[in-house]
Amino acid sequence: MIAKTGDGMDRFEATYDIESPKGIGHAAEVLAGEQSTGTFVRLALETDALRDRSGARIEEVTVLGSSNAPSLPTRSTGPAYERGRIRISWPEENIGPSLTNLLATVAGNLFELAEISALRLTDLTLPASFAQNNPGPAFGIDGTRRLSGVSGPLIGTIIKPSVGLSAVETAALVGTLAGAGIDFIKDDELQANGRYCPLADRVTAVMRVLNDHADRTGKKVMYAFNITDEVDEMARHAEMVERAGGTCVMVSMIPVGLSGLRALRDRSGLPIHGHRAGWGMFSRSPHVGIAFPVWQKLWRLAGADHLHVNGLANKFTEPDAVVAEAARSVQAPVSAGGPHHAAVPVYSSGQTVWQMAASRRVLGNDDFIFCAGGGIMSHPGGPGAGVVALRQSAEAARDGIAIEEAARTRPELAAACATFKQPEIAL
Amino acid sequence: MIAKTGDGMDRFEATYDIESPKGIGHAAEVLAGEQSTGTFVRLALETDALRDRSGARIEEVTVLGSSNAPSLPTRSTGPAYERGRIRISWPEENIGPSLTNLLATVAGNLFELAEISALRLTDLTLPASFAQNNPGPAFGIDGTRRLSGVSGPLIGTIIKPSVGLSAVETAALVGTLAGAGIDFIKDDELQANGRYCPLADRVTAVMRVLNDHADRTGKKVMYAFNITDEVDEMARHAEMVERAGGTCVMVSMIPVGLSGLRALRDRSGLPIHGHRAGWGMFSRSPHVGIAFPVWQKLWRLAGADHLHVNGLANKFTEPDAVVAEAARSVQAPVSAGGPHHAAVPVYSSGQTVWQMAASRRVLGNDDFIFCAGGGIMSHPGGPGAGVVALRQSAEAARDGIAIEEAARTRPELAAACATFKQPEIAL
Repeated sequence: MIAKTGDGMDRFEATYDIESPKGIGHAAEVLAGEQSTGTFVRLALETDALRDRSGARIEEVTVLGSSNAPSLPTRSTGPAYERGRIRISWPEENIGPSLTNLLATVAGNLFELAEISALRLTDLTLPASFAQNNPGPAFGIDGTRRLSGVSGPLIGTIIKPSVGLSAVETAALVGTLAGAGIDFIKDDELQANGRYCPLADRVTAVMRVLNDHADRTGKKVMYAFNITDEVDEMARHAEMVERAGGTCVMVSMIPVGLSGLRALRDRSGLPIHGHRAGWGMFSRSPHVGIAFPVWQKLWRLAGADHLHVNGLANKFTEPDAVVAEAARSVQAPVSAGGPHHAAVPVYSSGQTVWQMAASRRVLGNDDFIFCAGGGIMSHPGGPGAGVVALRQSAEAARDGIAIEEAARTRPELAAACATFKQPEIAL
Repeated sequence: MIAKTGDGMDRFEATYDIESPKGIGHAAEVLAGEQSTGTFVRLALETDALRDRSGARIEEVTVLGSSNAPSLPTRSTGPAYERGRIRISWPEENIGPSLTNLLATVAGNLFELAEISALRLTDLTLPASFAQNNPGPAFGIDGTRRLSGVSGPLIGTIIKPSVGLSAVETAALVGTLAGAGIDFIKDDELQANGRYCPLADRVTAVMRVLNDHADRTGKKVMYAFNITDEVDEMARHAEMVERAGGTCVMVSMIPVGLSGLRALRDRSGLPIHGHRAGWGMFSRSPHVGIAFPVWQKLWRLAGADHLHVNGLANKFTEPDAVVAEAARSVQAPVSAGGPHHAAVPVYSSGQTVWQMAASRRVLGNDDFIFCAGGGIMSHPGGPGAGVVALRQSAEAARDGIAIEEAARTRPELAAACATFKQPEIAL
């Protein structure tokens, strides 16, 4: 799938869902010109040799439909608005293996082009050199299993209320969850380093509970402390978490950006739990934005170990097919050739035992984190039974046993099935 | 405008353009709950005291209209889709003066809420503590004038073709532009640190020309080298530019992110030219995204000195009123009270002498950078006459003289007026 020029030079390639009042073939030319050697009038310096060497190239133009009205407000009009798929490639030597410049090229000043009435970046194909020259996840699933001691999917949860608990109250809840046998706990992305629950206090209080629990049981629960912040603060705080015996840090990837994420990767000795707070900005409109399979490649190359992908039958708007594609993309090779750089998909949002089998089926393996909130805390037998029920559902899924059948001999699972409503999963 | 609780605690406040099938009052409650202490069921730990202390608060709900169909695809439906404005506030102590956590709060997991069929973050009001505890631009207009020696607006241009010239070819073009009397030159955002024009070679070649020119004329043209990259590379490259006698670095702010930008601010001794490549993702849809007056506050607080705002009568899709609001926002105080942290608006995109007066009128001052490409290079008298004509248009604007009148006694301006088509400016 990696496009090569005649001389074997590596190219990267972007696929767009595009709409244009001028025809998508013309729009592809404008886009390719604007994002490489062209400008609105051809300059004397833009020689054919320069174009051949450094220009973007149109690899595909496929018309898929047409409509009478533009999908986005546009100054440029036409008798019809043609829609379809285009693929554009660029020589990698234009930018080197730089993630930030890659993004500025494939998603730069082009969403606002007058010739375009819709544009979504839907796929990105990278040469192996990108995967070789960017570090990728330092831990991934192997490192996560080594630090957590968990062999199946990690059963996780999120501290709620999201914000407002003190460090002591957080630690008390963590004690309950650890006692319930949970594998993974995370701060909510709203829980920052505020006055009422400073990170330093939270790390101290939570790790005291988790270190004690590990001493007693041999099980170190993985806690993802939200250290989203400036680079120097993130570096200092990752070190603080590590020194306290913690095994994970979390970061909101969109606010800190690719350079912020990568800087943390270079400065942290712990897995990075990548939260995609703000994701809807890129995904919610069918007419503008960037699809998750694209973003997740950049985040993995920058060093994220865990990546949130929403959950099947979630409480948000993403359809199940989008969630499934997102989860699979996180485990797929980041490029053809070169290191795989797989990350760990994190399912979250309204999850109960009912979503476990389908979540596993999407991936074909147990290499994921499954976060539930009410699905654990609201179990009639308490959080301990909630965790047991989720683990039972994961084992049943692994063994190919239907949940209803497994529930017959597993009372915690049976109680969960009776308590939580079975959602419709549209896959 | 800064909301205060009864006990005088500082709050930050976000304004949204919102649409909901459940009524925007209900949607405001969901949003405020989701982004602070709430979750889909009220938990025992979410006490009234905790809510009062840490909860988000609805400050305004103003219904402005209603329609029969949702603006964005949505799972939740209703008989009508109510649209309007809401304002939500949060206690600053939830997050401290952290830009990244501010963004994760006001633009977090809310664009994908099922109860919402459109959501744009349109305004952001910050307490003075945010402006006090973030560095803001290190140079701004004063530092830019000091380094460039320019008293009016800076007349600038962008190296074209955007990518593909060698370092030697770039330097030759820079020599022509410096000879033409230009104040400011920038790399295109597509010009990264690629194999054909490595940054180190470009800095060496360009600065040799500009240092020689400064020795001869006393005028040091400001060149914004694009150093967009990982944090450590940006730091090293900013130092390299400074050591070579350069006076500006440029960065694509969306790819590097807020933490990346701030890290450069902390490590650079030069003004940061903030490019907004990818901006259309946030701005192009009327139904999802973040308005520029919001983003620019974050970028200024992180340390950007110059901020691109597009141009009046630009070749893209942004209406002139949006461009004017963007330009003004960059010079407005970042919060009520505290340091002003003003940045320098950069007009760019299809600019000629015709847009100068209106660009100045929008701001009421000369504290801006005005970039033209064809508007300089395609002047019939050559680039030197092109720069002179732009400076004449700026002086006429400053003195309140109509461009047609000024052109009578200024042949370069007259030639520019005759060559370039007068665009319609809709202000």
